[in-house]
Amino acid sequence: MVYDDAYFMSIALEQAKEAARQGEVPVGACIVQDNQVIATGYNRRELDQNALAHAEILAIEQACKVLGGWRLHRCSLYVTLEPCPMCTGAIINARIQRIVYGAKDSKAGCCGSVCNMTAMPFNHHPRITSGVLEEECMAQLKEFFKALRR
Amino acid sequence: MVYDDAYFMSIALEQAKEAARQGEVPVGACIVQDNQVIATGYNRRELDQNALAHAEILAIEQACKVLGGWRLHRCSLYVTLEPCPMCTGAIINARIQRIVYGAKDSKAGCCGSVCNMTAMPFNHHPRITSGVLEEECMAQLKEFFKALRR
Repeated sequence: MVYDDAYFMSIALEQAKEAARQGEVPVGACIVQDNQVIATGYNRRELDQNALAHAEILAIEQACKVLGGWRLHRCSLYVTLEPCPMCTGAIINARIQRIVYGAKDSKAGCCGSVCNMTAMPFNHHPRITSGVLEEECMAQLKEFFKALRR
Repeated sequence: MVYDDAYFMSIALEQAKEAARQGEVPVGACIVQDNQVIATGYNRRELDQNALAHAEILAIEQACKVLGGWRLHRCSLYVTLEPCPMCTGAIINARIQRIVYGAKDSKAGCCGSVCNMTAMPFNHHPRITSGVLEEECMAQLKEFFKALRR
């Protein structure tokens, strides 16, 4: 069976839900190669007290381990929120083929919102698909911040 | 005794030398708070087979551990080569106060060369000092690539 983008985004959404359960801003990611999830990650910045512990970074680290190399050129990365500068840079450095994201991030998004780093003259240019399960991804973030204010 | 930028850059250069000894592109970094080196790192991408293992990332990870938190707002980061998109993003995410670098990177540098991410509308804007021990930093990289071609 061949899965579609919505299927893989729902796996990223599950990861984001786990972040929320642990009191973290709910962002989740997964990395897919040959129609198979090879790595997952969710935001753990507060849990790990580590500025690097974004969902995408943890997934990339795991994917490098799984594949035994740093070039993820046959992989797609699915993430519920548009990647920040650090994560977009990490995606470029890891030669990831394609970025699929759900909700836009008007404050820090570097795949179209604040800027589009994939179109800058770096040595690798991932393709971008945005807006996959956008409403679910947005709703999850909104709910989290609403609960936080209560 | 109060140390100057050249002193801390010489520590980053020592780290870069260690990278070269291990067959890695020689880039080294250190993080300084209150006139003291609290973390160091050197490029280990091939050794670790990890796309994230740049000098700055490893130093930031160590600094978060040393300080027990992800906000490095009282820290300066010294690095021999201008930070790439990922590392500049990580520096912004970690709220590092100041970036000091040696050699420019015309292909991937995001602190003035390809772009200046510290001037984009993100939520933190590190100050930049460039060109510290620039010749030594450049010479080390040139030597490494010359030896590689032989």
